Amino acid sequence: MINVAILGFGVVGSGIAEVLTQNKDLIKNKIGEEINIKYILDLRDFPDSPFADKVVHDFNIILNDEEVSIVAEAMGGLHPAVDFSEAALKKGKSVVTSNKEVVAEAGDMLLKTATENGVRYLFEASVGGGIPVLRPLGTCLAANKINSINGILNGTTNYILTQMIDFGKTFEVALKEAQQKGYAEANPTADVEGIDACRKICILAAIAFGKLINPSKVSTTGISKIRLEDVKNAANAGYAIKLIGQAKDIDSKMYVSVAPRLVAYNNLLAKVDDVFNGVLINGNAVDDVLFIGRGAGMMPTASAVVADIVDIAGRPEIKNQNWDKAEDNDLAPLSEKISAYYVCVSNTEEQAKAIFGDIKAISSCDGEFAFITNAMKKLQFEELASKATVISALEIL
Amino acid sequence: MINVAILGFGVVGSGIAEVLTQNKDLIKNKIGEEINIKYILDLRDFPDSPFADKVVHDFNIILNDEEVSIVAEAMGGLHPAVDFSEAALKKGKSVVTSNKEVVAEAGDMLLKTATENGVRYLFEASVGGGIPVLRPLGTCLAANKINSINGILNGTTNYILTQMIDFGKTFEVALKEAQQKGYAEANPTADVEGIDACRKICILAAIAFGKLINPSKVSTTGISKIRLEDVKNAANAGYAIKLIGQAKDIDSKMYVSVAPRLVAYNNLLAKVDDVFNGVLINGNAVDDVLFIGRGAGMMPTASAVVADIVDIAGRPEIKNQNWDKAEDNDLAPLSEKISAYYVCVSNTEEQAKAIFGDIKAISSCDGEFAFITNAMKKLQFEELASKATVISALEIL
Repeated sequence: MINVAILGFGVVGSGIAEVLTQNKDLIKNKIGEEINIKYILDLRDFPDSPFADKVVHDFNIILNDEEVSIVAEAMGGLHPAVDFSEAALKKGKSVVTSNKEVVAEAGDMLLKTATENGVRYLFEASVGGGIPVLRPLGTCLAANKINSINGILNGTTNYILTQMIDFGKTFEVALKEAQQKGYAEANPTADVEGIDACRKICILAAIAFGKLINPSKVSTTGISKIRLEDVKNAANAGYAIKLIGQAKDIDSKMYVSVAPRLVAYNNLLAKVDDVFNGVLINGNAVDDVLFIGRGAGMMPTASAVVADIVDIAGRPEIKNQNWDKAEDNDLAPLSEKISAYYVCVSNTEEQAKAIFGDIKAISSCDGEFAFITNAMKKLQFEELASKATVISALEIL
Repeated sequence: MINVAILGFGVVGSGIAEVLTQNKDLIKNKIGEEINIKYILDLRDFPDSPFADKVVHDFNIILNDEEVSIVAEAMGGLHPAVDFSEAALKKGKSVVTSNKEVVAEAGDMLLKTATENGVRYLFEASVGGGIPVLRPLGTCLAANKINSINGILNGTTNYILTQMIDFGKTFEVALKEAQQKGYAEANPTADVEGIDACRKICILAAIAFGKLINPSKVSTTGISKIRLEDVKNAANAGYAIKLIGQAKDIDSKMYVSVAPRLVAYNNLLAKVDDVFNGVLINGNAVDDVLFIGRGAGMMPTASAVVADIVDIAGRPEIKNQNWDKAEDNDLAPLSEKISAYYVCVSNTEEQAKAIFGDIKAISSCDGEFAFITNAMKKLQFEELASKATVISALEIL
């Protein structure tokens, strides 16, 4: 019997308990042993829950119980989640988590701590919810030099953008509806400003390139400035606007950023709608592979956490990944990134052509002129843009 | 240093050699050891190849060289590939393969042989080419009861169907073009009649349900009878016709089949076009996840084979899967399968309604009437269909 403790009995924590219970026999058949939930750590009591008798309020009970070999951290937030995780690893307990903040901020330290203590640290659920993407990237694509990762990594913003694109709602209206449906939180900043997506692309980049860039160093733009006019202009030109977390290898340096980008309709990422997530990975042997699924939600996220538990239960001896912190000279300068741009200016078409040269006009109305530029370095684009009166400017994926 | 032998120096075998060479340093960094190609087995010599000095013609040289710990089988065909694989496993060498025929026919035996000899047998490349799907299904979705798998598993037929759908070409014209482009073989039977897709869905089903059904027991229909009229009727009703390998859990029994099916446009599988493959998996916790990528080709397939080599090199101790042969009473009767149907008859709309009851008309012209039925058991559908003059009938996914 393998004893597990769940830290946090919120949405994800209760999902983990439910999956472990509902699929108990199936899991036992797979690994040849029963997985038992011994403790659930939470500040609250849950007298009506079937797991009421498992609830404890003191982490030390878990930490000091040698029978507990796996800890599933589903608390959210950086502290004390990171401290509890580190303490558990140091006590020789493997840790699994869905907490992208912890992994993006301290994944390098926690992986090293796990390795030093002969245990494992896994976090499949931290990116893409239930979509298997971190393990496939780390193992199935291990023979590839990863050229690029482009991901729709946040379901809330993707829902809002889909409402804007498909039903012509403004950002404000779509956000309010997302909040009413429970897809967006009362304080939606982490989602709509790209902070959540940023953490996830940092994790993906660390797996691809072996170096963890701190989210604070990643150029991150959310979707709150996206206007309905931009969505319509993009559609007229054959693109959907999606919030894309991007990690690229540019001349053996890491380029990582989060921004709303125009995705051509013939790219399947453009069709990943509503709360779904999609991650498009390009490797030098495999070319493009795309993973799509529910990027959040109780059961999908729990599915990934429990898969990590099953993985550890079945093979505790496997090596952890080894991440270093990304130093400044590991990073490609943003200014060197080459892209074409969608631009909307309050200049005339003639003025725009005089500034940007060879452009593809999309539309001209209400004193705005929208167009697509040729590909150029970001530095050059900014130089040209400074000569125009730019209303919106977005990279083309 | 880990010594590998490649069996067969055709498209896949030379891709394996190329990926191992091109990404040598990257792989060495990952596993901490160099992977060395010691032998390449082929009947031919390749005097102009950079690997010319590795080529041997006698399998016993590989079998009896204790330095070779991993054999990559890329010969194709059932014999002698299966015999060489078994012999290598019995000599304590792990085996990786892209050969779906061998895995679908003898995977259960080879997995048991590997386990008995303390080595591994892996075959990620046998389904979906470079798309990571077998390992994610077996590990990342391990906490799920798998409800269904629906896959576009054959690039040749998907290319032909895409040409029919997008450009109005007939099957015959599209097939000829596929042959000219090298997407279809001179004898295209295994592809167009669904035999290749059948082997792949058998492998997926074995991972999902732990039992390997022999391809000969799987109801398999190809695309050679698909008429342009059916493609157009489907499009008018909002569907694309795709060759779908399907495995379902029906009341804890396995249902496996291959057939062209109508896929609604709002299902992303309908958008997986050309030579791309897509596998849609539904689990009881994760809901839907979709994997898309190049299902064939030298480098994508080699990417998956080499990932298996890297996996074994990094962790040779992991357990193999354990498959039993599916017995007749493991299988759900085809007649019980519930689907809605697309039907085209040479009866009138009135006659069709009298026979099939509540139907959704699609079109009526040139003496043909096309419609969609309600969902019903296959047995019932066949009973009703026997009363009409059916030109075409296809399941709706």
